[in-house]
Amino acid sequence: MNSNQDDRRRARGRGKREEILAAATERFGSHGYEHTKWADIARDVGVGPTALYHYFESKQHCLYEIMDEAIEDFRARFVAITGRERDAGAALTAVMADAFVLSEQEVLRNRVLVAEQGLLQRPSTAQREEQSRQAARARTRDLEFAWASFLSSAMREGAIPETDPRLLTRAVLGLYNSIWHWYRPSGLVELERIGDYFTQLMLAVVGLSPQAVEPTQAAA
Amino acid sequence: MNSNQDDRRRARGRGKREEILAAATERFGSHGYEHTKWADIARDVGVGPTALYHYFESKQHCLYEIMDEAIEDFRARFVAITGRERDAGAALTAVMADAFVLSEQEVLRNRVLVAEQGLLQRPSTAQREEQSRQAARARTRDLEFAWASFLSSAMREGAIPETDPRLLTRAVLGLYNSIWHWYRPSGLVELERIGDYFTQLMLAVVGLSPQAVEPTQAAA
Repeated sequence: MNSNQDDRRRARGRGKREEILAAATERFGSHGYEHTKWADIARDVGVGPTALYHYFESKQHCLYEIMDEAIEDFRARFVAITGRERDAGAALTAVMADAFVLSEQEVLRNRVLVAEQGLLQRPSTAQREEQSRQAARARTRDLEFAWASFLSSAMREGAIPETDPRLLTRAVLGLYNSIWHWYRPSGLVELERIGDYFTQLMLAVVGLSPQAVEPTQAAA
Repeated sequence: MNSNQDDRRRARGRGKREEILAAATERFGSHGYEHTKWADIARDVGVGPTALYHYFESKQHCLYEIMDEAIEDFRARFVAITGRERDAGAALTAVMADAFVLSEQEVLRNRVLVAEQGLLQRPSTAQREEQSRQAARARTRDLEFAWASFLSSAMREGAIPETDPRLLTRAVLGLYNSIWHWYRPSGLVELERIGDYFTQLMLAVVGLSPQAVEPTQAAA
């Protein structure tokens, strides 16, 4: 709870829009998107429901913006890490480790992302809603492309076995995403343990045994 | 499409309730649960919307019944296969192979199951709805328990490495479920290829190399 409040307080400094996004993430992530009322979010941030429309066309538009930012964060972090680690095993381990360093707000955002994935499939007739939906879909493709390119070059270098890089991307992301369907925050140690465990499984999925990863680089 | 029509025709023989479940699965799986109107399902099966209430309390009640049946099918198939295969590797390979022998209707049902998972978390105030929801949740626990027991005994026998059987269950089921978030039917060969690929990955996740699986038993 404290870490959520901190997130919200920090968000307040970045302006009303970010404050709304943070409040909506907390509501959507804790109670579900369908069960959240637009008016509840307005109350959380201390504005009238109509004032929200200055920032977002609809609750759905707000959801798409949350998803878009979440996906872009994943992509940017992935590109930054894989750009500085030359060894494929060390890069993958660093990407995985990073993917479990999450604030409570980021855990909730991951939950929103996996729970409401299906809503990204349906075209919308509202203009800004549809723009955000398409932006989030394009980001998803960018993230998948970044992963597939990385895996593909690791295959060319012989660091991991040859296979279909796009299917392997889907498997790795699918395994990671599956965590947020059942994980509920109950302390940092717990998430760390799950992170260590799923990192090992993801290395097994890409065909890297833990022994193949150089420990000094992996710790960087 | 033909296979869907066949499914529906077969369902018709099993009575109106099954016919409604089949029509709802097709709608929910193709267009999404939220975007399906109760009245559309009524039209599909040729009854008035009020007549549907003889069978289901609500659209949500119908959804829970679909999920409950899907989970029970998985559980029953899992128990049958692991009951007759003594070798853990052969049993796992047979379970995986079986998990990809799916009619178009069953693929749609899997999509409904993974897309609407989140709705199983929210208690309902409507009586039959809540009963079905709790039944589906209990079935999920039964399925996870069957998997964890199987993996746990495979660990005791030394067939797979020692680890937390419940976390491993979640990883294996999470990897399998992730497929239905993105897979769209486009021919049997395609599903077969995905099945072969993900079977190898799931064996890697449990710590069984493909070589460890005896080919003759695996083919059974």
